[in-house]
Order: sequence, then C-alpha cells, then structure tokens
Amino acid sequence: MNGAESLIQTARTAGVEVCFANPGTTEMPLVAALDSVPGIRAVLGVFEGVCTGAADGYARMTGRPALTLLHLGPGFANGIANLHNARRARSPVVNLIGDQASWHLAADAPLTSDIASLARPVGWVREVPTARDASAAMAEALERAQGPPGQVATLVLPADAQWEDAKGPTPVARERERRAPDEGRLDEIAGETREGTTVVLLGGDGLGEAGLRAAHRLAAATGWAVLLETFSARVERGAGLPAFPGLPYFPEQASEALAGADQILLAGAAAPVAFFGYPGGRSALEPEGCALLPLSGPGDDTAAALEGLADVLGAAPAPGVPARPAPEPARGALNPATLGVTLAALQPENAILVDEAATTGTGYAPFAWNAPRHTALGLTGGAIGQGLPCATGAAIACPDRPVIAFQADGSGLYTLQALWTQAREGLDVTTIICANRAYRILQVELARAGIAEPGPNARALTDLSSPVIDWVAAASAFGVSAESVDTAEAFAASFQRALAEPGPHLIEAVL
Amino acid sequence: MNGAESLIQTARTAGVEVCFANPGTTEMPLVAALDSVPGIRAVLGVFEGVCTGAADGYARMTGRPALTLLHLGPGFANGIANLHNARRARSPVVNLIGDQASWHLAADAPLTSDIASLARPVGWVREVPTARDASAAMAEALERAQGPPGQVATLVLPADAQWEDAKGPTPVARERERRAPDEGRLDEIAGETREGTTVVLLGGDGLGEAGLRAAHRLAAATGWAVLLETFSARVERGAGLPAFPGLPYFPEQASEALAGADQILLAGAAAPVAFFGYPGGRSALEPEGCALLPLSGPGDDTAAALEGLADVLGAAPAPGVPARPAPEPARGALNPATLGVTLAALQPENAILVDEAATTGTGYAPFAWNAPRHTALGLTGGAIGQGLPCATGAAIACPDRPVIAFQADGSGLYTLQALWTQAREGLDVTTIICANRAYRILQVELARAGIAEPGPNARALTDLSSPVIDWVAAASAFGVSAESVDTAEAFAASFQRALAEPGPHLIEAVL
Repeated sequence: MNGAESLIQTARTAGVEVCFANPGTTEMPLVAALDSVPGIRAVLGVFEGVCTGAADGYARMTGRPALTLLHLGPGFANGIANLHNARRARSPVVNLIGDQASWHLAADAPLTSDIASLARPVGWVREVPTARDASAAMAEALERAQGPPGQVATLVLPADAQWEDAKGPTPVARERERRAPDEGRLDEIAGETREGTTVVLLGGDGLGEAGLRAAHRLAAATGWAVLLETFSARVERGAGLPAFPGLPYFPEQASEALAGADQILLAGAAAPVAFFGYPGGRSALEPEGCALLPLSGPGDDTAAALEGLADVLGAAPAPGVPARPAPEPARGALNPATLGVTLAALQPENAILVDEAATTGTGYAPFAWNAPRHTALGLTGGAIGQGLPCATGAAIACPDRPVIAFQADGSGLYTLQALWTQAREGLDVTTIICANRAYRILQVELARAGIAEPGPNARALTDLSSPVIDWVAAASAFGVSAESVDTAEAFAASFQRALAEPGPHLIEAVL
Repeated sequence: MNGAESLIQTARTAGVEVCFANPGTTEMPLVAALDSVPGIRAVLGVFEGVCTGAADGYARMTGRPALTLLHLGPGFANGIANLHNARRARSPVVNLIGDQASWHLAADAPLTSDIASLARPVGWVREVPTARDASAAMAEALERAQGPPGQVATLVLPADAQWEDAKGPTPVARERERRAPDEGRLDEIAGETREGTTVVLLGGDGLGEAGLRAAHRLAAATGWAVLLETFSARVERGAGLPAFPGLPYFPEQASEALAGADQILLAGAAAPVAFFGYPGGRSALEPEGCALLPLSGPGDDTAAALEGLADVLGAAPAPGVPARPAPEPARGALNPATLGVTLAALQPENAILVDEAATTGTGYAPFAWNAPRHTALGLTGGAIGQGLPCATGAAIACPDRPVIAFQADGSGLYTLQALWTQAREGLDVTTIICANRAYRILQVELARAGIAEPGPNARALTDLSSPVIDWVAAASAFGVSAESVDTAEAFAASFQRALAEPGPHLIEAVL
C-alpha cells in the first residue's frame, strides 16, 4: 500500500463517496489509487473552479465532505474562488493537491510554487512530509473539514508522499456534536431582551426547517422581528414553512431594516456588516448603541437554541403557518419580475434552487417563500462563478431532486465549463441564464459612486452586449440542450419541457 | 485628484497603454480614473485568467507592462495560473487589486480575504496603506515589474486608498540597462571551456535574433552544440535564422541530449531540471560531474555575452545560415504530423505563434525552424489555459501581425472566454484547436507510471470524448466564426480563409 492508497482508503472508510477532480502528472498515484481502492466516484471537471464549486454544493446538500483533486499551485489557484465561497458557507471540503516530489522542490521546476501560501486564505492547510504521514493527514483533514462548523481543509501531497510505501488507513474521529447554549446563558439572554426592541438575525444552520419553525414559535410569543442573513449557504424555503424577510444587500437599506433595534439576537448568523464599505459609510449595520447578543454560532445547534429560549420565555407551541397565495405565471416580455414570478410558479416541489441570479434575482425574491417547498443555495462569499458548479455538485449529491441553476449571465461565464460535467454525468439540472448582457450590479455601483455618465472605459468594463454571448451555442458546445426565450410564456413552456426530460438543460432568458 | 487618479496618471506618464480588466465594486474609483485620466485602453475579459494571460502576451511582445485590474482575492485568484506563467516568462505585469476599504477590513465582510498571501507566490506585492501612497506605490510596481529581469508586481489597493485625496503622479525611474559579463569573466569561461565537451543552453532573451546569430557564430567557431531551453517565453524562429534543437521535455530524453557534456554554458537559461520528478529519478538533467557555467542570467544581455565570448575566443564572423527546405502541406487524415507540417507550410510570414498545443505540438516541432519567420510564445510555467489569453494580448500588442493560437483542446477549455475578448476587440487571431479529445499527456504519464490498463476512474479523468466538445459552437457562442476540419486539405483551406479575413477565427482540427 502506497501513500496515495492509504489516504484514499482512509477517506473511503470514513464515508467519502465522491472526488471532483482535474488532476495532472503529480497526482497520478492518487488517480491510480481511486481505482485500486474502490468506492469513490471520480467526477471530472474541465476547469478546477468547477471541481471546487461542485464540492461546495455537494457538502451543502449532504453535510459531508467530498474530495477535490487538483494539480499543483496553478491548478489549485483556479479553484480558490469557489473555495472562498465554500469557506463562507462553512462547507466541509477536502482538497488534495499533488506537489513536486519532495526531493525535486528545490530544483524550482516550472510548475513549482508556494501552494500553502495560496491555500491558507481559504482554510486549514497541511503539507504532508512523507508517505507514512498520508493517512493520518487525511484523517485530520476530514476531522478539520467536518467541524462543526465545517471548513475547507487542504493537503499538499508531494508526489513521493503518494508513491512511496505507507502504513494502512487511519480511523477518522466521529463528527463532534453541535452545541446549544445551556440554561444559564438562555436566562441571561431572556434578561437582556426583556426591555427594548429585539430583532432576531437568523443564519447558518438555523435556516433549516427546525430553525425556521423555532424562530416562528419565538416570534409569535414575543413579537420580535426575524430577519434572515443576506446570503445563506442553504435555506429551506417555500410553501408550508414560516416566511421571514432577508436583511437587504445595500447597507442603507440594511440599516433601515435594523433601525430601532435595541438588541439583535444572533442565531447562527454573524454580526451584520456591510458587503462593501462606501465613502462616509461604516461597517456595522445595526444602529449605534444596539447590543449584539450571540445566541448560537455557525457550528451550533441553532434550532435547539431557539427552542430553548422559547421554553425559557414560556412560549406556547408554534402557531400554524398561514397559507400564502401561490405565484401565477406571468405573460409578456421577460424582465426580472416576470421571469421571477413565473419561475416561482412553475418550479417543481422539492427542487434545489442554486441562486446566483444577482440583480435579476430581485424579481424572484418577493415570491421565493410562496413558491413550492425547495432548498435554496446562495452565493455566500461573493466570488462569482459559483452557480453552475454548485448546481453540479448538488445534483451529484441528490440525484432524485430536480436542480435549478438560476444564474446571472456575467457570473455564469466564469465557470460555464460546469455544463460539460452536467452532460457527462447526465445530471438533472435546469440552468436559467438571466441574459441582461451586462454586469448590471457594477452599473448600479457606478451610479452609487456618483458617476451619472460613465466614460467609454467604464461603459466598456460593465457591458456584455458586444458581441452578445449566445448561451444556446455555449450549452450545445458542452453537450447540453438549450433554448432561448424572451417572453414569459415561452420561458414557461421551455422550463416545463426541461423539467419533464431527464438530463441537463439550459434556458437563455433574454431580459 | 484622488488616489486612483494619481495612480493611473503615474502609469500613463510612464508609458502604460493598456489595462486588461475585470473589475468589481471595490475597483470603481480605478474604473472611473481610466476615463478621467485618458490614454489607457481598457480591455474587458469575462474571466480573470483572460486578463492576466493577455497581460503576459502583451508584455512578451512589447517588453513593457500592461496593467490588470482585478476584484479582491477571489477575482485575483482566478488570474493566478496565468500569472504563474508570466512569472516563469519573466514578463513585466502590474496587477491592481481593489480591496475592502481599510476601515472595513476588520469587519471580515463576505468578500474579504488575505490577498497578499495569494499574490506572493507569483511575485512582488505591496499593500497600499493610503491614497497619498498610491502614486509612489504605482511607480515602484512599474520599476519592479520592468526589471530587468521582468516580474509580476501586485498592488493591493483598499477602496479608500482609491477614493481619498492624493498627491499628483510619481515619476518612474528608467529601466535599468541589461548587463553583459565583463572581459575577466569571459576569459574565465574561455578557460573553463578549453577542454572537454561544451554544450550551450540558450534561453531567455538569448532567443531573439541577435542571440541566435551570436550562438551560431560561437558554435561555428567552436563546434559546441547549442540547445534551446525546453519552454521559452519568446523565440524568434523560422526561415533565415540559425536553427537549434530544443532540450527535450521528458527527463530521460533530456539527459540523453546532454550526455557527454563536460560543461554546460548557461546563456540566458536556468540550470536544466526535470519538469517533474519520477520514482528513482533526479532533478538535474546534466550528467554527473558536468559543470554548469553561468554566462548570462535571464535579465542580462545574452546576445552581447555570446558575442563577447566569441570575440575572446577569436571567432570569425558568423557564417551564412544554410537555406532549409520549406515544409509542404500534407494530404489525408489529420494527425499531429499532417497538421503540424501543413501549419508550418502555410503560416504567414511574420506571424506570432502562441504554442499551447501540448502533445499535438510534437508534430509541428520538426518543421518549426523551416516555417516562415515567426515569433513563438511558449507555455513557460506549465499552467494550462495560457494560449488563448496570451494570443489575445499579443494581438493587442501587435495589431499589424497575424496571431496564431496553436491550442490543445483540454488546455483551451480552461480559458475559452478569451475568444469573446478577441471578437469584441476585432483581433486578428486564428485559433487552431487540436481536438484529440483527451488529456493525452496524462494518458502518457499513466503509462509512464506503469499503469498499462487504467481503471474506470483513471480513464474517466483523462478522457474528453464523452460528450465531445463542439468547438465550433463554443466559438460561435463568443462571436468568433469557426469551422471543423478532419483532413489536411480541409485544414489548409480553412486556415487560408481565416488568414485572409480580418478578425478572429477558430478552426477545430479533429485528430
């Protein structure tokens, strides 16, 4: 058994089932080990950002890590953007990166670089010195990755640490239990929220069904407002579930939503901060003097924490959730509003909706909670190019659930190679490209920066209309059947066809 | 004048003409400054690897830096792979990366990350503290980038260091002169090469016309063999120039090419090392006991060094270069050999040939020096996805020269978004996709690793045939007209059509 085999067997024994890979020469022993140690499915991405984004999507849906297998520093670098999103989602992901043989590092061959320096910004890193260290390093990486909270863990594996003889596999410790605050802390919080206005900011694992229902119970008993964090890794959403508004994206609007709060109860969510700083602005979104009360952190059991607090406050069981009107498909020209309501009306029960729709998503948001029950995966880290890979990984994780990639066109271009993996693996993903042919958010930001009349360079850097990108051709290049639509009726028909047929489809929704 | 304007004016005054950009919100003051300080052309890439690879190609052709403008850590990360190639090419490139406002960093907003840790592996990095430091930092970055030798220089610019008030521009010091060894050193080398067998390894700036002619003179006078470094940033090549073989890629073959050498004269080239280490192998490629004699480093004037040595040795002027037979187009099915010779036969005089053809390139290599005179740009750092962006930047740098991107299909998929920039800017680039529908080099490496019968995972991770990628559709998606061919005759006709028409074209050469 060589180092690569001991590592793969450690992962397999711990329950790892999938490896999203784009390997090269320095990973060949690991590639061979994926066959000699059976049981892990290797899924090829033809660009590393596909692999890392897919691992993130897989982790969000299963709660368990997938492996990625990437080639040296440059190959890993191509995967960093989506690992940044995974880091912010607290997704468990384990990256395996081959490096030059240990005795070859000093030669500074062309592909040699400082991989650890690249990997540190996205999480935990370990450089594995010898083959005999490989299985223990794998076990530690899995433990680090699974948390809770989950994180990105990276192993840098010199080629000789893969091909030399090694010990057998290393057992992996069981995942630690998620914590909930004890009664003393709950009593404290009850005291701290007795007076003034309390707002609950719900996030992280609190956005599952149990967390939402606990927040509903608490809110009904106390009258507290509940807001959801702006960008969530995963939220259960739609008909039958209690609905709450999200904290708005732009800082002025977010501050307005929090105005009047005397204390903000952080339930699985981090303290609310602006996505970007603006001249004359500030980082915090809560009013001056508002207290932040941490109830549960991202790795904690937020549903239990909320139920515990409700108990301490003597809250009654949660009341029923009032039925909300189902959205109706729109008619006429496509725009964010007609596209959004039609999607919400027609999306199937139990879908996974990967939302990287950016500005177009504002048309869907008002209907998101009225749509059929679904799981939504969001752009946690703001690194665009997350949607198509994340949808790919979610579909690998949940082959029995329809996956919808609701995708901005500019962002989608970053990692469109994910379509090929969807076709190769026959994944049931329907991609909706919101083709507004601009980096619209940047046009908004230019206006916010007071640039009413952008000059030629500013216009050139925010426009995608010259030439127009033909997404039907792009999908077809990668083996995905596609249609272009520009009315709500045509979108509805195309969407329903795509859902009815197995395998991946793409709809270019021209706005 | 704000920090962004002082920085852009510093660059403009120093002669910077192009900025390859994919900015976001934290770069808006720099975007605005590209209009308020006129004279720098902003070229949008819809993926950051396009921007950085284009800056590398531009630098190789002009010897001067372009700017890149990239968005925070994740945006920069998408550009690292091609910056790795630029680093190995010693290309002057200056990256501008917006960061969160300095007062907003501690809030750890979603897009915040350690940008410097990401940037250090590719070169020099400076975090700019305030707007008043921006112009001096720009001046230093330009000086660092231009060398010689050239390098990648990165400025991390908090948003407030762009929007706050600043001083005026900072003058940039002139580029330092390239050095050549003095007579004492040349006498030493003459002594050290008096006995035994000397091989000249020519690289770096020694691969221009002057360096090749100097090496020819020296070789004619001494009988020394001349080998070219395996992967060159830029080499002048073709009819009328002295021709030399390259050092082979695989270490066994490279060692064989150097067998019998008692000393290797390093003329602009680094010491020869294996691209990868293999079990039982070694890093060095020269025979045991062979001396390495540094004549000139990568930032030195290698042509002058070689001429100086020839003078010291009393060499006669260089003899004429014997005419070599021009390649003839092939007939019949396309394979690496028929494609290679037909390309060499039909490529126009004075072309720029960006070579990321990988294994297919072996069919072209025997004819490369018999082809019409051209400039070849190679894959210096082994980070694939370099070809299409590099061709894009070369075409921006040299609008009057035809550019040929000779491109492996697997590698081309990494950064195919470059085609859009070619269409948008109307660049005269002809891309030839070598469609063997596999990561062929990895299949070779699996066989080299003794895996005669790869298992299902190893096969899956090296195969690109299911589904086949339709490059004609991919080009059309990005506004580039394209054809697919599978015979040498059809390739010849398509290639000649593409050359005759302005603007970008793509030919899928099915092998």
